[in-house]
Amino acid sequence: MVKIAVMGHGVVGSGVAELLQKNAAHIAAKAGEEIVLERVLDLREFPDLPYADKFTKRFADISDDPTIQIVVETMGGLTPAYDYVKACLLAGKSVVTSNKELVAQKGDELLAIAKEKGLNFLFEASVGGGIPVLRPLDQCLAANEVSEVTGILNGTTNFMLTRMIEDGMPFEEALLLAQKRGYAERDPSADIDGLDACRKICILASLAFGRHVYPAQVRTEGIREITLTDVRLAAAVGGVIKLIGKAVKNGEHVSCAVAPMIVRKEHLLSDVRDVFNAILVRGDAIGDVVFYGRGAGKLPTASAVLADVIDEVKHLKARKYLCWSAGAPDYAIDFGLLPARMLLRVRADADKKADLAAAFGNIEFVTCDALPQDELAFVTSAMTEKELDAALKAVSGAEPVRRLRLAEL
Amino acid sequence: MVKIAVMGHGVVGSGVAELLQKNAAHIAAKAGEEIVLERVLDLREFPDLPYADKFTKRFADISDDPTIQIVVETMGGLTPAYDYVKACLLAGKSVVTSNKELVAQKGDELLAIAKEKGLNFLFEASVGGGIPVLRPLDQCLAANEVSEVTGILNGTTNFMLTRMIEDGMPFEEALLLAQKRGYAERDPSADIDGLDACRKICILASLAFGRHVYPAQVRTEGIREITLTDVRLAAAVGGVIKLIGKAVKNGEHVSCAVAPMIVRKEHLLSDVRDVFNAILVRGDAIGDVVFYGRGAGKLPTASAVLADVIDEVKHLKARKYLCWSAGAPDYAIDFGLLPARMLLRVRADADKKADLAAAFGNIEFVTCDALPQDELAFVTSAMTEKELDAALKAVSGAEPVRRLRLAEL
Repeated sequence: MVKIAVMGHGVVGSGVAELLQKNAAHIAAKAGEEIVLERVLDLREFPDLPYADKFTKRFADISDDPTIQIVVETMGGLTPAYDYVKACLLAGKSVVTSNKELVAQKGDELLAIAKEKGLNFLFEASVGGGIPVLRPLDQCLAANEVSEVTGILNGTTNFMLTRMIEDGMPFEEALLLAQKRGYAERDPSADIDGLDACRKICILASLAFGRHVYPAQVRTEGIREITLTDVRLAAAVGGVIKLIGKAVKNGEHVSCAVAPMIVRKEHLLSDVRDVFNAILVRGDAIGDVVFYGRGAGKLPTASAVLADVIDEVKHLKARKYLCWSAGAPDYAIDFGLLPARMLLRVRADADKKADLAAAFGNIEFVTCDALPQDELAFVTSAMTEKELDAALKAVSGAEPVRRLRLAEL
Repeated sequence: MVKIAVMGHGVVGSGVAELLQKNAAHIAAKAGEEIVLERVLDLREFPDLPYADKFTKRFADISDDPTIQIVVETMGGLTPAYDYVKACLLAGKSVVTSNKELVAQKGDELLAIAKEKGLNFLFEASVGGGIPVLRPLDQCLAANEVSEVTGILNGTTNFMLTRMIEDGMPFEEALLLAQKRGYAERDPSADIDGLDACRKICILASLAFGRHVYPAQVRTEGIREITLTDVRLAAAVGGVIKLIGKAVKNGEHVSCAVAPMIVRKEHLLSDVRDVFNAILVRGDAIGDVVFYGRGAGKLPTASAVLADVIDEVKHLKARKYLCWSAGAPDYAIDFGLLPARMLLRVRADADKKADLAAAFGNIEFVTCDALPQDELAFVTSAMTEKELDAALKAVSGAEPVRRLRLAEL
């Protein structure tokens, strides 16, 4: 019998408790031992739950209880999750977390403590909700050099973009619908400004390339400015707009970004609709592999947490794989240095076409009913952001409105 | 340092040797130990290879060498692979295989020997080539009750169907092209008659539901009879024809089939093109999860084999998960008992429409230029094969030409 504690009885934490009861026999068979929920840390009270007697408001009831071997952290945020998780590891307890902010900011430090203590620190649920992706990625890594990880990592924005693309729904209306369905928070910033996806690409990049990438090292742009005009322009060039998280190995360095990009319609990722997520891993031997599923939700996420708990129960005396080293300021280099084809909208008269072609070289102008009369739109050949800025500067009377990178998968 | 042997220096076996050399440092870092290729069993000679001195024609050089701890079997077929693998396990060596026929026929027995001996028997490469799917499936299983596994499991037939669908290429021509590209054997039967997919769905079903399903228990139908008319009819009902392997939990039983089925165009699986494979796993907590990638090929498959080898090196003293019990004749029940909507083609006069509607109940006739003048095509409501046969019998003058199940994902 292994005793566990859950810190934070919100959506995911309560899902963990629920699944642990519902599938108890099945889980015990898988883990080879009974798993008992010993304590739940939450400031709130839930007197009607069958495990109401397990609740505590005191963290010390968990950290100081030597019979608790595994702690699940589903509180979210850095404070106090970081202090609590660190204290649990230092107290000799293995930890499972679904907290992407914690892993993206502090993963290297917590992994180092776990390693030193011979404990496990697992966080499969922090990326892609219920989709098994970190462990398979680790498995891909065993015999592959991974060159790139690209994903649709945020379900809320993907739902909104799907509504914009398929129903012609304006951004604001799509946001309201996402809020109504419970996909978006009242303050939707973490989703629509790309922060959530940024944390996830940090975790993926850190694992894929073995060194920590911190959120501040990721160029992050959300979908707040995307309009139906952009959506229609993307369609006119044979693609759809997706909020993409991308990490590319670049010699000894890495370049990461989160931004709305255009995925061509023939590519599998263009068909990842609604709240689904997908992560593409490119390896030298394996080629492209994609993992797809629900990126969020109570039970999918809770099932990923429990899979980690079961794994830790089976490895109580042996360290598991998943590890990376500390990052460094000069490890990540600007994503804008990676050349790509871009879809550009500029406010300019039609007679500027020749000037634009002269400045940009090989470009294709896009015709589209949705484009305002006073704008031109075109797709460039592969260029860096710097080259693009220089070309734009060279044309007087062409004011940039939007630039969208082609995902080139 | 861990010494391994490779049995069978064909496409996959030579890929394993190649990757082991190319990514040696990386692999050693991952495994925590150097992995040394000690012996290669093959009846042929390869004097120009850097590891030419490792070759032997005598199996005993491997089985009787106590310094070899892990054996990779990439010979294919049941004879002598089955005897050799069994002998290796009995001699205390862990085994990795890419041999789907071996696992589909003898997996339960070999897993039982491995368990008894405290050894590992892993076979990630036997399904989906380089796609990590068995281990993630095992992980999904930890906290989920899986109800269904559905996959595009054979790259050759998927390539051929893609050519038929996208280029309007007739079956025979698509087969020739597949052979020319090296995707199909000179005798293409194992692919186009569904045997290869059958073995893979056996392995997936055995793992997902915990009891062995043998190939003879899978209703298996290939794509040999599929014509461009069928392809166009499928398009007319909003779908594409894919060779689908499906295993469905049915109370205490399981129902498995391999057959060409119609996947609606909105579903992700409809976009799995060319030689790619995809496997969908449906769990009670996780919902639908899909794993996608190259289902075959030298390096993808070899990389999956090596990931297993690395895992075994890390678990030389501990048993790994993956296990299932022996099957039974009454465990699998006929797939035809699962009701589904069907696309039916019958040779009948147009005036039989009323009779067909009377016999089948709620049906939708399909209009399509490609349909021969003397035929009718329609989609039924969900019904079992028995109900369908009975309804067909009730209509005189309607001769069945083709039935295609809708995959209903």
